[in-house]
Amino acid sequence: MSEYRLHSDLPIGLNAQGERQEHDALGALPVPADRYWGAQTQRSLIHFSIGTDRMPLELCRAYGLVKKAAALVNQEAGRLPDWKAAAIMQAADEVADGRLDAHFPLFVWQTGSGTQTNMNVNEVIANRAIQLLGGEPGSQKPIHPNDDVNMGQSSNDTFPTAMHVATVRGIDGGLLPELDALAGLIEARSREWQDVVKIGRTHLQDAVPLTVGQEWSGWAHQIRDAMRAVQAARGSALELAAGGTAVGTGLNAPTGFGKAIAARLAELTGAAFVTAPNKFAALAGLDAMVRVSSAIRGCAVVLMKIANDMRWLGSGPRCGLAELSLPANEPGSSIMPGKVNPTQCEAMVMICTQILGNDAAVAFAGSQGQFELNVMRPVVIANVLHSLRILADGCRSFRTFSVEGTQLNLERIRRYVEGSVMLVTALTPVIGYDRASAIAHDAMEHDLSLRDAALRSGLVNAETFDRLVRPIDMVGHGTAGA
Amino acid sequence: MSEYRLHSDLPIGLNAQGERQEHDALGALPVPADRYWGAQTQRSLIHFSIGTDRMPLELCRAYGLVKKAAALVNQEAGRLPDWKAAAIMQAADEVADGRLDAHFPLFVWQTGSGTQTNMNVNEVIANRAIQLLGGEPGSQKPIHPNDDVNMGQSSNDTFPTAMHVATVRGIDGGLLPELDALAGLIEARSREWQDVVKIGRTHLQDAVPLTVGQEWSGWAHQIRDAMRAVQAARGSALELAAGGTAVGTGLNAPTGFGKAIAARLAELTGAAFVTAPNKFAALAGLDAMVRVSSAIRGCAVVLMKIANDMRWLGSGPRCGLAELSLPANEPGSSIMPGKVNPTQCEAMVMICTQILGNDAAVAFAGSQGQFELNVMRPVVIANVLHSLRILADGCRSFRTFSVEGTQLNLERIRRYVEGSVMLVTALTPVIGYDRASAIAHDAMEHDLSLRDAALRSGLVNAETFDRLVRPIDMVGHGTAGA
Amino acid sequence: MSEYRLHSDLPIGLNAQGERQEHDALGALPVPADRYWGAQTQRSLIHFSIGTDRMPLELCRAYGLVKKAAALVNQEAGRLPDWKAAAIMQAADEVADGRLDAHFPLFVWQTGSGTQTNMNVNEVIANRAIQLLGGEPGSQKPIHPNDDVNMGQSSNDTFPTAMHVATVRGIDGGLLPELDALAGLIEARSREWQDVVKIGRTHLQDAVPLTVGQEWSGWAHQIRDAMRAVQAARGSALELAAGGTAVGTGLNAPTGFGKAIAARLAELTGAAFVTAPNKFAALAGLDAMVRVSSAIRGCAVVLMKIANDMRWLGSGPRCGLAELSLPANEPGSSIMPGKVNPTQCEAMVMICTQILGNDAAVAFAGSQGQFELNVMRPVVIANVLHSLRILADGCRSFRTFSVEGTQLNLERIRRYVEGSVMLVTALTPVIGYDRASAIAHDAMEHDLSLRDAALRSGLVNAETFDRLVRPIDMVGHGTAGA
Amino acid sequence: MSEYRLHSDLPIGLNAQGERQEHDALGALPVPADRYWGAQTQRSLIHFSIGTDRMPLELCRAYGLVKKAAALVNQEAGRLPDWKAAAIMQAADEVADGRLDAHFPLFVWQTGSGTQTNMNVNEVIANRAIQLLGGEPGSQKPIHPNDDVNMGQSSNDTFPTAMHVATVRGIDGGLLPELDALAGLIEARSREWQDVVKIGRTHLQDAVPLTVGQEWSGWAHQIRDAMRAVQAARGSALELAAGGTAVGTGLNAPTGFGKAIAARLAELTGAAFVTAPNKFAALAGLDAMVRVSSAIRGCAVVLMKIANDMRWLGSGPRCGLAELSLPANEPGSSIMPGKVNPTQCEAMVMICTQILGNDAAVAFAGSQGQFELNVMRPVVIANVLHSLRILADGCRSFRTFSVEGTQLNLERIRRYVEGSVMLVTALTPVIGYDRASAIAHDAMEHDLSLRDAALRSGLVNAETFDRLVRPIDMVGHGTAGA
Repeated sequence: MSEYRLHSDLPIGLNAQGERQEHDALGALPVPADRYWGAQTQRSLIHFSIGTDRMPLELCRAYGLVKKAAALVNQEAGRLPDWKAAAIMQAADEVADGRLDAHFPLFVWQTGSGTQTNMNVNEVIANRAIQLLGGEPGSQKPIHPNDDVNMGQSSNDTFPTAMHVATVRGIDGGLLPELDALAGLIEARSREWQDVVKIGRTHLQDAVPLTVGQEWSGWAHQIRDAMRAVQAARGSALELAAGGTAVGTGLNAPTGFGKAIAARLAELTGAAFVTAPNKFAALAGLDAMVRVSSAIRGCAVVLMKIANDMRWLGSGPRCGLAELSLPANEPGSSIMPGKVNPTQCEAMVMICTQILGNDAAVAFAGSQGQFELNVMRPVVIANVLHSLRILADGCRSFRTFSVEGTQLNLERIRRYVEGSVMLVTALTPVIGYDRASAIAHDAMEHDLSLRDAALRSGLVNAETFDRLVRPIDMVGHGTAGA
Repeated sequence: MSEYRLHSDLPIGLNAQGERQEHDALGALPVPADRYWGAQTQRSLIHFSIGTDRMPLELCRAYGLVKKAAALVNQEAGRLPDWKAAAIMQAADEVADGRLDAHFPLFVWQTGSGTQTNMNVNEVIANRAIQLLGGEPGSQKPIHPNDDVNMGQSSNDTFPTAMHVATVRGIDGGLLPELDALAGLIEARSREWQDVVKIGRTHLQDAVPLTVGQEWSGWAHQIRDAMRAVQAARGSALELAAGGTAVGTGLNAPTGFGKAIAARLAELTGAAFVTAPNKFAALAGLDAMVRVSSAIRGCAVVLMKIANDMRWLGSGPRCGLAELSLPANEPGSSIMPGKVNPTQCEAMVMICTQILGNDAAVAFAGSQGQFELNVMRPVVIANVLHSLRILADGCRSFRTFSVEGTQLNLERIRRYVEGSVMLVTALTPVIGYDRASAIAHDAMEHDLSLRDAALRSGLVNAETFDRLVRPIDMVGHGTAGA
Repeated sequence: MSEYRLHSDLPIGLNAQGERQEHDALGALPVPADRYWGAQTQRSLIHFSIGTDRMPLELCRAYGLVKKAAALVNQEAGRLPDWKAAAIMQAADEVADGRLDAHFPLFVWQTGSGTQTNMNVNEVIANRAIQLLGGEPGSQKPIHPNDDVNMGQSSNDTFPTAMHVATVRGIDGGLLPELDALAGLIEARSREWQDVVKIGRTHLQDAVPLTVGQEWSGWAHQIRDAMRAVQAARGSALELAAGGTAVGTGLNAPTGFGKAIAARLAELTGAAFVTAPNKFAALAGLDAMVRVSSAIRGCAVVLMKIANDMRWLGSGPRCGLAELSLPANEPGSSIMPGKVNPTQCEAMVMICTQILGNDAAVAFAGSQGQFELNVMRPVVIANVLHSLRILADGCRSFRTFSVEGTQLNLERIRRYVEGSVMLVTALTPVIGYDRASAIAHDAMEHDLSLRDAALRSGLVNAETFDRLVRPIDMVGHGTAGA
Repeated sequence: MSEYRLHSDLPIGLNAQGERQEHDALGALPVPADRYWGAQTQRSLIHFSIGTDRMPLELCRAYGLVKKAAALVNQEAGRLPDWKAAAIMQAADEVADGRLDAHFPLFVWQTGSGTQTNMNVNEVIANRAIQLLGGEPGSQKPIHPNDDVNMGQSSNDTFPTAMHVATVRGIDGGLLPELDALAGLIEARSREWQDVVKIGRTHLQDAVPLTVGQEWSGWAHQIRDAMRAVQAARGSALELAAGGTAVGTGLNAPTGFGKAIAARLAELTGAAFVTAPNKFAALAGLDAMVRVSSAIRGCAVVLMKIANDMRWLGSGPRCGLAELSLPANEPGSSIMPGKVNPTQCEAMVMICTQILGNDAAVAFAGSQGQFELNVMRPVVIANVLHSLRILADGCRSFRTFSVEGTQLNLERIRRYVEGSVMLVTALTPVIGYDRASAIAHDAMEHDLSLRDAALRSGLVNAETFDRLVRPIDMVGHGTAGA
């Protein structure tokens, strides 16, 4: 029985000014008195004040879940007394809920294992738990950041675990729903416009017709395919390193620790986490993250194409293709009055470009593991979560403010179909490629309609031409194509 | 009934000198008389003499299969008479078998749809079929490259189809078997060395021990995981664009053409090809190729790590880590006699680097589609097949000439374990992190053995130390880790 | 003479609560009453709430300088009355000094021309100037964001101008000084250790000796070379687009406007800005930024090598190379007590990895211009300034907390030199490569010292050996090498 | 005086069949009797049969120059007798001239220092020199590949030297002349069309006018700028590593060797080669190559923009922008008769994409040096020479077959200018941005001409409108823009 008692309703916050002494294996140093973090966090702030990139809060929150799961498992195994576990779990919950966000100040550019962030989490949870138990922050009693909060754990297994948890949540809570909503809207418009015949373009040159609905169905299908690849990569991220501790052997963690933590994390999140089947691979590699990054990139590749198509089809209003009218959300130019620009498409294209860059960094980092550890973890999680976030938000913005309000310029679309010479293709099964080609060249050279050129060639009569060259008959059946 | 008869035993070869006139829609021009190609191939040679990169022969051969499948389907549909189909199919077989390789001279840097290579295939098959039927090469009679060989097809659907066929064959016939053989050998050695305790290294610094078998199991597991991702991406490549013709609508192809061709290609290759569910996506995107490239890159990321680890562990012989002895296959230096270098590892690392570059090109290309077509196909297939080939060959070379002959330096490995201070970690569950840390620092500062430092700390006695700090007890169970 | 009077000592701040109506060409909408921005900024906030990446403040501040320079030139040309110019210039100064930072809330993911940020700057300056003149914020009187603040300008020429100004300042005020300090320290240590002979390593394998000072001189030289390339790229960034207005023709800007603005910006910053010699290229391309990004990447490539070398040479303490002792700034592991890790090297390696990714995004963006404009500007400036910032800070951190405190393990270094077999190379000019090779192989095979193996070969006698194989004589002269 | 005499007119070729025994430090093995290479080349062929990428012949030829220069210097220093030097130099000349190309069979994927290719060169020169001197190939007498041909050299310094020589020659003999020719043609057309007013486009949307000549001047200027950056990077490649031998100290090379070789190479090539100021950097880094690759990428970024612009401006013929008519060099489609595609633009865009990928590999490789050597040399030189070659050829092809024959569609160009609403910008200095904006919106909403909308607004009268809104007055002066 402990002398400590849990005051679970104690509000968050250290009511103190100035500084507090904290210590670690290298000695003591002052930290801001109103912050929960300890000596190792403070050392990191001193030694790694680089740029403005902070460790993503999504990662810190996910770490809260990992610490809670570990405490649960340690408690059940009788390694952590109930009262300690209760305090740690409450503090971990507060981390997970984002209520302690202000206490995670560290930069991405720190130790490559993320140890400093693990210690930041350990220290914040320890001091908050100490507070909840009536102890003195900084005393490391009765809760020690290493011996209690980090019990049975290493940064080397928990940081990748938190990475995977944060990534899966980013996929489930952001990217996939937003892609789904965007694909859904495009599919709806595809159905709406399934019978509007338009000219096809290949090599940017006039080609044979298809329907607007078919064109949009292709975009939606590309997104759906890319989503499936994200789902597949997500499967890799469900495998968790926890239990491997320092090098994968699980030293200082009891047997079954990894399996139990994964089960607890599955309960806490609703995602089907399991323990990684080989802990050496899980620590030494970043392969699951590289795969997730690839899959996000796959989405970016698709969305760049779609956004480009949309802005080209919306180019004009008078000197472009002008098949689409994109919504005007803002004045487009500081100097040209009345200008409207495809700004949502541009934002999307820039987002996709960023994701290609982020992914290059992730793949490179993934290749740079050494022996039992890959120490490129912070840069990888920062890039993956960055990509997830801007792509999810970008899809929402693009859908709401551009795709939603896009309209067809039916007159322009119709005129293109009528004018195109490439409808001659429908004649080839009857007159052969070479003769059809001659007709097309004649039409272009003499600025004739295709019909006029065909008739004057003597190769087809009017009746045949009108029967064969009907745009609506040239688009096949349904939105899926042939 | 045709006036033409198939002379199926006519040997390959045009017994002619000088030039032959060929023509296409733009007119006539001379081609070398001993080549089967026609006017459009020749035009491409004239206009696209760029570098030394030829269209990969794997692609041309796969195109032979596509043309055969199309002929079969056209024949069955009654669109192509039996005698024409027979001649086309024989010629297509010869293309597929590589017996007409010398007739595919085109460069990668041509039209972005691959039309010129499609026409190269059409022209070669047509002229060879004409020859087999007793006609005159160049006459386009009785077999026309467009109307007959290309019947129901477009470059826009058949080139991506040939890309997918060539890619799947490269995966099945090269990459996956070689990865499997490499992983298998690593697994065998992992079992062989499952009880050899060695020092772990994280951040390049001494860490807690594991076994050599465990370390190698991690490598094998990473490869196995990467193989699974290749399998998943291969699934995308099983979907074929054929049937979509020019823009995805299937104009000029009969209903069911795509499905039938895919079925035929599945029969011809043994791979489970199916028709792409949305032809607009299949033509306008290169998503399956981007996914395959990602998956190959995933393998490269893993193999770079493994090759790096191996060369570092083999560094020395006297001033490096020297845990491994890699086989000496050649003198290592032109100036330093007796030098042995980890050359297979270096080749592998360079291959992986190339693959990262190739993949960057592929992803970029994938994003640059426009409307109904992505005209980045030749650069994409060239890079993907390049990556497949060098990685498969590289794995074989690395396995045969390096992993196979690698030996352990048991004495060195043992000495490291004995000397390491990090075994102190085993004491932390008993004396806590802070005291254990003090012991470790004392050992390092005064150059003591860990045991001496621990005993003089008074925190543990000899019996306890010897019971707790036993490397063999610190490595957990089995090769999979915790 | 105006009814307005400049109250230049009016403190910054809008003492208001709730909302204020602002309007633009699309109508009116509410903005927070305590913010200086106007309708177009607010629209952007509504339509582009994507991720957490804000337009870099360095860019916004540089924009303040651009606006000041434009006002000066417009005033001198008599286009802007003195009292208007004075108010605009004071507000622009406040922007440039960072005192209005809180009023630039826009995201990177906006219109690709940066128009929304240009309007943000125009609106903030207009409203602040209105306030300084006693007018009512939001009234656009007497200062109009477009007609006055943006006079003679377009986003298309001023945004790239601000990009260049911010980039040059980031180079001059951050990257180059930090690289110089790092190179300087490495040079100092190179001189300090110029006579310490150590074993060379090529292919990770023992090679012939050099001095520690020589090794470090190579690092310093690589940095100095990379700095020169940054200087060269900076030259491109000195050319400014201002004056080209919307498409490069300079419509609505008076003749000489671009030249005058560049001169003013040169005065204001001390950097030798000039007007771009071809405005069409300046607007349609991002080539100068691509070059700067390349040059930063060149630094990253070098620093990754140096940081990797340092952590490898510092590997150990007992199971690594251990030639260097890097300073211990923090506990290295949450589970392994007493562990010290090369964390500054790891941060540097991660920074360099990020920069490679950022650069990939920049180059890709640079290739995506269309006609008269490249609308990838925000993503490019965000990545370039990001790279500049983290590399400059990273160099400082790496220098201060790692290179500064690094020490040599002289005993270990000496032992390696003595043990190495590769000193045999010094015998080759006398006995030839093949015989020297045989001696080396004999030494390694039978675990002999090189001297013993050489003497027992009978090819050299002791006197000759001792004369020829002297490490100190094998290192050439000076730190520059041969 | 030697027993050997130089038979300098002995034709190239080994008149022998079957195999010949060759040996090296690891023993003897058979090589094809009609090949000049020796044992180490053969070992490499056995151990590195990977893919189809051979070491670029440009590199092997440049190596011939390096060997000749070394022989000259060794001869002058009295280290190599005249008769040996004469034989070596003749053989080296034959290598340099490409007459021994068939004897360089090695793959790119070999040892990372390029040692195997250095030995390939040494062996071929040795055996050819032996032949010229009347000796027996394979005997290593009187010319030894290491002791004579490689005298004073290491792969570590000569391979990078050959890389630089090959790179500089590729720049001087290919890339720069082709870029110059392309820029020159574009400049000529810019002058030709300097008075043709066309509509500008920003964000793909109609903007204010410029002339066709101005638009083309921007393209030319971008190329010229990119050329300057290539020139700057070429400067780095002029610094040669030769003289550093194995680790940079110059062991076994006499003092001044590096300087003398550089001087000789300058004479032999006409390029201003100098010895690298720091040999440690020259061996351990690949920085000059990374810079050259960056500069090539800079060209690719520009050319991608130009090629994209050209194909977009040539899109149509009836459903695109159709301002330009690109020449029709071949039938564009296998299924659509009469189709003409911008194939040269597509090839150029694919080339640029490849170069971005190649450059990613080069930069990555550049970062992976270790201690005294970067063993990524073959992959780097392969990629750089690949990029140089395809870009030079691509420029020639693009210029000759596309830019040369491109024509303006004057009617279409005129019509766009007349129809555009953005000419309203010319009114803003008079009526202000907001009123001008209202006129523009009115015109677009009611499908009015700008003139009609302006007049009915009552804000300007016809006289004012016609005076202010004159496209020819809106384009500024000259092709350089504002």
